[in-house]
Amino acid sequence: MPLEPAVVAHTVQLEPATQEDLRSDWTRLCDALAAQGVQGPVTAPPSVMAALPGVLRRHNWQASVVLRCRAAGCEAVRVGAPGDRPLGFAVDMGTTKLAGYLVDLQSGKTLGMRGRMNPQIAYGEDVMARIGYAMQSQSHLETLQRAIVGALNEMIAELCAGAGVGPGHVVDMVAVGNTAMHHLFVGLPVEQLGTAPYVAAVAQALDIRAADLGLEIAPGGYVYILPNIAGFVGADHVSMLLASNIPSMDGVVVGLDIGTNTEVTLNANGRLLACSTASGPAFEGAHIRDGMRASEGAIERLRIVDGKVQYQTIEHAPPVGLCGSGILDAVAQLRLAGIVSVTGAMAGNDRTVIDDVHGTAFLVAPARITGHGADILVSRSDVQEIQLAKGAMRAGVKILLEEAGLTEADIDTFIIAGAFGSYIDVESAVAIGMFPPLPRDALPAGGQLVGDGRAAMPGLPV
Amino acid sequence: MPLEPAVVAHTVQLEPATQEDLRSDWTRLCDALAAQGVQGPVTAPPSVMAALPGVLRRHNWQASVVLRCRAAGCEAVRVGAPGDRPLGFAVDMGTTKLAGYLVDLQSGKTLGMRGRMNPQIAYGEDVMARIGYAMQSQSHLETLQRAIVGALNEMIAELCAGAGVGPGHVVDMVAVGNTAMHHLFVGLPVEQLGTAPYVAAVAQALDIRAADLGLEIAPGGYVYILPNIAGFVGADHVSMLLASNIPSMDGVVVGLDIGTNTEVTLNANGRLLACSTASGPAFEGAHIRDGMRASEGAIERLRIVDGKVQYQTIEHAPPVGLCGSGILDAVAQLRLAGIVSVTGAMAGNDRTVIDDVHGTAFLVAPARITGHGADILVSRSDVQEIQLAKGAMRAGVKILLEEAGLTEADIDTFIIAGAFGSYIDVESAVAIGMFPPLPRDALPAGGQLVGDGRAAMPGLPV
Repeated sequence: MPLEPAVVAHTVQLEPATQEDLRSDWTRLCDALAAQGVQGPVTAPPSVMAALPGVLRRHNWQASVVLRCRAAGCEAVRVGAPGDRPLGFAVDMGTTKLAGYLVDLQSGKTLGMRGRMNPQIAYGEDVMARIGYAMQSQSHLETLQRAIVGALNEMIAELCAGAGVGPGHVVDMVAVGNTAMHHLFVGLPVEQLGTAPYVAAVAQALDIRAADLGLEIAPGGYVYILPNIAGFVGADHVSMLLASNIPSMDGVVVGLDIGTNTEVTLNANGRLLACSTASGPAFEGAHIRDGMRASEGAIERLRIVDGKVQYQTIEHAPPVGLCGSGILDAVAQLRLAGIVSVTGAMAGNDRTVIDDVHGTAFLVAPARITGHGADILVSRSDVQEIQLAKGAMRAGVKILLEEAGLTEADIDTFIIAGAFGSYIDVESAVAIGMFPPLPRDALPAGGQLVGDGRAAMPGLPV
Repeated sequence: MPLEPAVVAHTVQLEPATQEDLRSDWTRLCDALAAQGVQGPVTAPPSVMAALPGVLRRHNWQASVVLRCRAAGCEAVRVGAPGDRPLGFAVDMGTTKLAGYLVDLQSGKTLGMRGRMNPQIAYGEDVMARIGYAMQSQSHLETLQRAIVGALNEMIAELCAGAGVGPGHVVDMVAVGNTAMHHLFVGLPVEQLGTAPYVAAVAQALDIRAADLGLEIAPGGYVYILPNIAGFVGADHVSMLLASNIPSMDGVVVGLDIGTNTEVTLNANGRLLACSTASGPAFEGAHIRDGMRASEGAIERLRIVDGKVQYQTIEHAPPVGLCGSGILDAVAQLRLAGIVSVTGAMAGNDRTVIDDVHGTAFLVAPARITGHGADILVSRSDVQEIQLAKGAMRAGVKILLEEAGLTEADIDTFIIAGAFGSYIDVESAVAIGMFPPLPRDALPAGGQLVGDGRAAMPGLPV
């Protein structure tokens, strides 16, 4: 992707003020920028202008100025020491998880990545629960807004600390999320999202001053928020469509963005249809007894061979749980081995245990070999969570196809957005009915592993 | 002055959202505005957009939207109930006093006016004292900024209450002040104003989001701040020049804007020169033993006839003090009567008292006839304050004339800005040397009285 940032840093050397040259500091700056080809007076919020006198006098009348230029003119978003490098922050605000990236806007290099749980979970696990909470009062809406903004500020501060700079060096931001996450982030009411006909308050792309949302980046920095499509198909899906190029692909293309809400787009020979399904957070490791994020010790691949369990963990560490691709493999393998029935019932065998809390469960790894000294199990209710998730996704695909007068057999290309699509075992996804049974070349490649990229499956003792 | 507000209110009736028409509320609004001829997507800060869903559903899909349109597009500054009238607030931020005006932006009518002391006085009486205070720390600068903004918010709230609306109906603001007041209001550093060569941080005209300064008006409202000329000739003087038309007048014109800092402009046959003088707050009633604002009971005109004091008070109430025109008259009459010498020394006579605190003083009105039951005096130190004030002003005029190679005799027109110029007795101003001794038609008209416009001078008993 070519680097084309909305902001550009200029380093300027000004002439010192004298009794004969009483131009204001800002006028002096504008004159120097004009000499570099920047047109017209440069505007800025007071917080940016306020930094200039001190910077100039501390740095021998030099400064670095980050400009955001549009047809109407240029706006300064930061005034800093000469040589400051401008950084950008991009964030995907999922219902369950947040993923943020710190980017050097001069080199285009990603300086760091950080994932964390969306703290709004404390006020409702899914979108409808959070809408319900926010509808109760204005202060609830503000609580949810502060929660997400606080988490983003922490992510930004941590990533910047890792890059050896303060968060004020972040001069531009891009954020996406589903329509409800978008509204709760921007502080827009969600009542109309929660009641028929479920319309968004705002759908157009937004350039919002980060400070207006409480984001602690450069004082004049903006956050660009992609447009929403509808009440339940949001800016995150728009970014997926842009990145995947689905809208301009030929034939019949289905694209899935798997998350707590899974958005589905169908490109039916040029006609675009989209919907959202409530698939739950199972593939993000939530609502799964031993579910976890894709980090060290997560079982990311699992096979049952001759009644024996084989698995691979991230970084080959002793297992401590199952990440999304691992739980998908586990359910698929249990189904193929006949341990789980077509309805999801779990038959007893020598690896079945009865867990006090979760009922019938299958022993994936006993306590003696795990990293935390406790059994790792796949329970009956874990299977149900996966059933709900894959059923929702498959229904979304089928409904869009029906709307376009097509069937699954017409699909030329089936795409899964993001990292998950490249990590999961596609055969497992087909085995449990999450993906339609398409020819192999119509399905995502899959099979990449988080840990070290090796697809080898060691036969581990159980 | 023709009414040409920067913001315009539009009332719109939208089509309700339905299952077949899922446009977002904001898109629906933009479409309705486009049908009224408003070009392009309308932007707005989140706080403005957030109001729309509730307003639409409470008012049967009607709303009043106040737009601020520029070449680059339109921005919504307020979304309210249909029929809301847009109001504007203009304020002159003096070093000592604030004067604010609430204006109906549809009719152009001034709905109310309010004056009050600048609460920054608690941190320094004059500009240099406040610069010194602000230079001590960032928190001092913030304290001064909060003080002025808090006072403006109170003035706005009081004026709006008088007009029967909330402060959110104020959708646009204009503010002026000298360069230091400007910087302290905007939150700009003032170190460089307080040290040679005394340059402004910012001189260009500013459009600042009112919310950025903590001003409690419409959530998207702006405050327009006129440009500064230099470190000590600020936006208030620019507004005076615009209103008085001095820059386009013929001949040699001198314009004074009298205040704690008095700005002087000389138009020398088309060449404009300006300076500022530290004249002190005497004419605003401060630093004068019995000084007061021009309100009920203030002595606004005074004569000494045959050794007897005659005076007129505002609203003919019993006297409680002297306003600016009154103290000017008093000092002039004392000088003409020979009670005050050319150096300012006060000779004793039968009306002289020795005040414990102020030393020699002249009894203007004895306790038995005053409104508050205490003597009203003009002290030796009051005379000194007036000497300092008029000396500073006259020096400013002379220095500019000298710079242009002219003398006072070359002045064709001598103008005093604002209300003060029309209230003072011009002969008194000439008598004490505040104005040069010019032909009568070159001087301001003067002589208007605050109270009831009658120039009659009742002979009051003393």
